[in-house]
Amino acid sequence: MSALRIEQVTTKKVIPKTEDLVFGKHYTDHMFVMDYQEGKGWYDPRIVPYESITLDPAAMVFHYGQTVFEGLKAYRTEDNQIKLFRPDENFKRLNRSSERLSMPQINEKDVLNYLKELIKIDQDWVPAEDGYSLYIRPFVIATEPNLSLAPSRSYRLMIILSPVGSYYKEGIHPVGIHVEEAFTRAVKGGTGTAKTAGNYSAAYKAQEKATKEGYSQVLWLDGIEKKYIEEVGSMNVFFKINGEVVTPELNGSILEGITRMSIIELLKTWGVPLSERRISLDELFRAYEQGLVEEAFGTGTAAVISPIGELNWNGKKMIINNKETGEVAKQLYETLTGIQTGKVADPFHWTVNVR
Amino acid sequence: MSALRIEQVTTKKVIPKTEDLVFGKHYTDHMFVMDYQEGKGWYDPRIVPYESITLDPAAMVFHYGQTVFEGLKAYRTEDNQIKLFRPDENFKRLNRSSERLSMPQINEKDVLNYLKELIKIDQDWVPAEDGYSLYIRPFVIATEPNLSLAPSRSYRLMIILSPVGSYYKEGIHPVGIHVEEAFTRAVKGGTGTAKTAGNYSAAYKAQEKATKEGYSQVLWLDGIEKKYIEEVGSMNVFFKINGEVVTPELNGSILEGITRMSIIELLKTWGVPLSERRISLDELFRAYEQGLVEEAFGTGTAAVISPIGELNWNGKKMIINNKETGEVAKQLYETLTGIQTGKVADPFHWTVNVR
Repeated sequence: MSALRIEQVTTKKVIPKTEDLVFGKHYTDHMFVMDYQEGKGWYDPRIVPYESITLDPAAMVFHYGQTVFEGLKAYRTEDNQIKLFRPDENFKRLNRSSERLSMPQINEKDVLNYLKELIKIDQDWVPAEDGYSLYIRPFVIATEPNLSLAPSRSYRLMIILSPVGSYYKEGIHPVGIHVEEAFTRAVKGGTGTAKTAGNYSAAYKAQEKATKEGYSQVLWLDGIEKKYIEEVGSMNVFFKINGEVVTPELNGSILEGITRMSIIELLKTWGVPLSERRISLDELFRAYEQGLVEEAFGTGTAAVISPIGELNWNGKKMIINNKETGEVAKQLYETLTGIQTGKVADPFHWTVNVR
Repeated sequence: MSALRIEQVTTKKVIPKTEDLVFGKHYTDHMFVMDYQEGKGWYDPRIVPYESITLDPAAMVFHYGQTVFEGLKAYRTEDNQIKLFRPDENFKRLNRSSERLSMPQINEKDVLNYLKELIKIDQDWVPAEDGYSLYIRPFVIATEPNLSLAPSRSYRLMIILSPVGSYYKEGIHPVGIHVEEAFTRAVKGGTGTAKTAGNYSAAYKAQEKATKEGYSQVLWLDGIEKKYIEEVGSMNVFFKINGEVVTPELNGSILEGITRMSIIELLKTWGVPLSERRISLDELFRAYEQGLVEEAFGTGTAAVISPIGELNWNGKKMIINNKETGEVAKQLYETLTGIQTGKVADPFHWTVNVR
């Protein structure tokens, strides 16, 4: 582990009022940066003032897309501690994503320590208000200036921090979802399980369609048969059908969500019947016609739980739980956010104190 | 069309000797830059010294991957003219790629004119030696600093120029190809037809496997059935089977190559039997067993024609034309490079003079 270099700002920014926060628009005073060179490994880990970066126009990230990222949050507890939620899982996944994109591995423990130092320095930016948090974005980009089609020999890892508002300004309320049949998010053998930039912009066209039709998000089907449910928007998805909670099994194109993983562990502990398996849209609609679809919700870091009130499959509509948030969704939301903010006991040791 | 602003360098670089050129490593003195802002459109087109660019670490290109690019070449003719090959097709395709990635359209004619001005300013960099050319890389990146998952509201278009050596230092010689069955390049409904960064780094893992097994390139199968031939490396692919030239039809996941398109037009003019259709690896191997596979080659801007001498499909091997370059490949290579460099008549009006 190289010595961490710290260069503090001379003038601190004014921290925006929590009510003025817009997701992903405000950044703290500092950022973490570390460089990689083939043959040398990662070097010069440093916390420096948040500032623009300078890259050659031929830097490979602009041309061939080697980039991976993560998203996690820091929460301020009532007794004024700062907690992270399962950050080790984020750095493990960053490494899995990097492996898929032929990018170098990081030392997960070292980077978690650097992150803790960064948050300590910018700790005044972690909001105290209920529902607010500090969003953390680690990312790695290919920096070698070279138009040859081959993995870059240099990279930069950065971590930036952004205080964010509650995803639910007026409380959780279920959203309407458009089932996408033409565009494909990911396919087996592709990059769907990696958090890499290309997966996200590839989804914008389908989101445009959904928005035009008055829906909030897209339900993604598998890229091969266009039959099986994969994800909703950029979240994993769960259904409660006839007392059992069902979520699509990880199949090589579904993102391995950390919220998804935590929910599965919680439901098992609670003794709620659960299965991870292939589920087709046909099966879901048949269950709906029999009155058996009890709940549906997306899960992810940003919203934690996002209940689904309506599904539109090419004109065939499904109204779920009278467009109200279901009991399982509510319990999961309260438990997860409770653990994250230290209000609920954490028997799984999921949270990590920053200080 | 906004007025083009030109800022010349004060000290020119030393132009490398052609024998020292490495693909994509040397850049000319100037570059073209133009910015886009939602509500304002494209503005401030300018030719400026080649230099690093400065971006916010939250610039969306690093996180959600909105970026598209093109690749084309300028050639110096024997009578000292400078020619481009079908540049209008490159800018049309750039716009098609941008549409897929929810990025703004450019005015193709204006940008072609800007490119011509840029090449005129750096004209000394266009190599005169046989097989050498000036590689042109237009690309657009999302620049808005915002971690929200939605299309960027600002972009930058840049064009950089790089003198490049002959793809074939020791003359064309056929390469060995590994058929990839696990990794997938692209699938219908995805971004396979767009020239966007994410498609390229997604292919590195398969290329790694091919290299390890002693093969030069990867043959990509369709992402759905893993049966039908799509592309080879980052090129389109052609086979000559029992007197007929066959290339996979454009299906929503295959890149619409400009060399591919030109070859199809040439073969039609020559009266060579040709079909664009689905072709499975099974069909190809059956034809091979009957002694009917006469030629195979990849096509693209970098190599123009890249003959395939051997295919390895999971241990099943195919040796094509005794690992020698076939007649059709040779004729196509000579005609295309001849037209590009002004040595052969251009009845299709494919070339455009820069000056």
